[in-house]
Amino acid sequence: MAFSPLVDELVESLRCLPGVGQKTAQRMAFHLLERARSGGVRLSDALSNAMEGVRRCESCQNFSDTEVCGICDNPARSNGTLCVVESPSDLLAIEQAGDYKGSYFVLMGHLSPIDGVGPEEIGIERLLRRVGEDGVTELILATNPTVEGEATAHYISDRLDGSGILITRLAHGIPVGGELGYVDGFTLTHAFRGRKPLLD
Amino acid sequence: MAFSPLVDELVESLRCLPGVGQKTAQRMAFHLLERARSGGVRLSDALSNAMEGVRRCESCQNFSDTEVCGICDNPARSNGTLCVVESPSDLLAIEQAGDYKGSYFVLMGHLSPIDGVGPEEIGIERLLRRVGEDGVTELILATNPTVEGEATAHYISDRLDGSGILITRLAHGIPVGGELGYVDGFTLTHAFRGRKPLLD
Repeated sequence: MAFSPLVDELVESLRCLPGVGQKTAQRMAFHLLERARSGGVRLSDALSNAMEGVRRCESCQNFSDTEVCGICDNPARSNGTLCVVESPSDLLAIEQAGDYKGSYFVLMGHLSPIDGVGPEEIGIERLLRRVGEDGVTELILATNPTVEGEATAHYISDRLDGSGILITRLAHGIPVGGELGYVDGFTLTHAFRGRKPLLD
Repeated sequence: MAFSPLVDELVESLRCLPGVGQKTAQRMAFHLLERARSGGVRLSDALSNAMEGVRRCESCQNFSDTEVCGICDNPARSNGTLCVVESPSDLLAIEQAGDYKGSYFVLMGHLSPIDGVGPEEIGIERLLRRVGEDGVTELILATNPTVEGEATAHYISDRLDGSGILITRLAHGIPVGGELGYVDGFTLTHAFRGRKPLLD
């Protein structure tokens, strides 16, 4: 852009956001400049504060402002159940569902030897240490139902073999509100195998 | 999010970007925190500099770091041709095409009485003043080929009626590289009416 180095730099910087290319970055920059200057200033402050202040929780590896995050620090949630998820957004989805009241461990990824991600990179040792120290009685492996997620779940369960801890995996089945005609074959097979008596 | 007020605030602030909802804002925030902290810091600086420093060019209304923008300030471009566009991104598209060497006037919108946008809001008086003062010989009305864009172009041309200035509008026709089968009827009609002898 010939007309403004500041706008140029803003467009270029916006491209570090995921899914934002040249055109979208331009549209965002012009929108902020034309109609949302106060929003832009707020975003600038929020970014600088978050980039500076957000670290990993010592206990669950999730993002946190403090050494130990709010969930790990909550005595009401240390009830012996630990749920292992791949990412903070998985944790958030479970929190928003609102039913689970135990604590979490966030791997921040999954085992993927081809990308150089081994047990160390996702903090498996820290997880095992926590399982031993915190008197965990049930470990829920809520990694994604993908090849890497399944492999990660199996690796963790192998490492805890013989420890006497109950290790569970989330149920597969038909999504609530879904229509049978749109459900894929694997999910349907899982749903049939996992069927339950109606009057439980 | 229970786990971090800083991440909360970052997600909330990202939602001021156009087309960014809750889920996308979350994905952006986690991406920056996990993999692009330096990009986040750069974006924060670029935002704060741009929100603070970018203003409107006194001469063409486009975004500029200085009182008069680089294009208006360039003596090589004051050649009596003035191109009127609706937005900075339209100007950018014309600049990237690289053929036009005159100057611009950016309306930052179009006439739209229903939204309360009249001639004053888009700086028509300033445009007319500039046309009078700068010895403009041709005024190219490059507003968008939409109802509002056409209305704006007609309004400006009416206001300059009898001034002796050549007023032109961009040609309609088949896009270069396009296939006839995919071109809509209006455009085809325009293309037929605007046909030219092959050996010009």
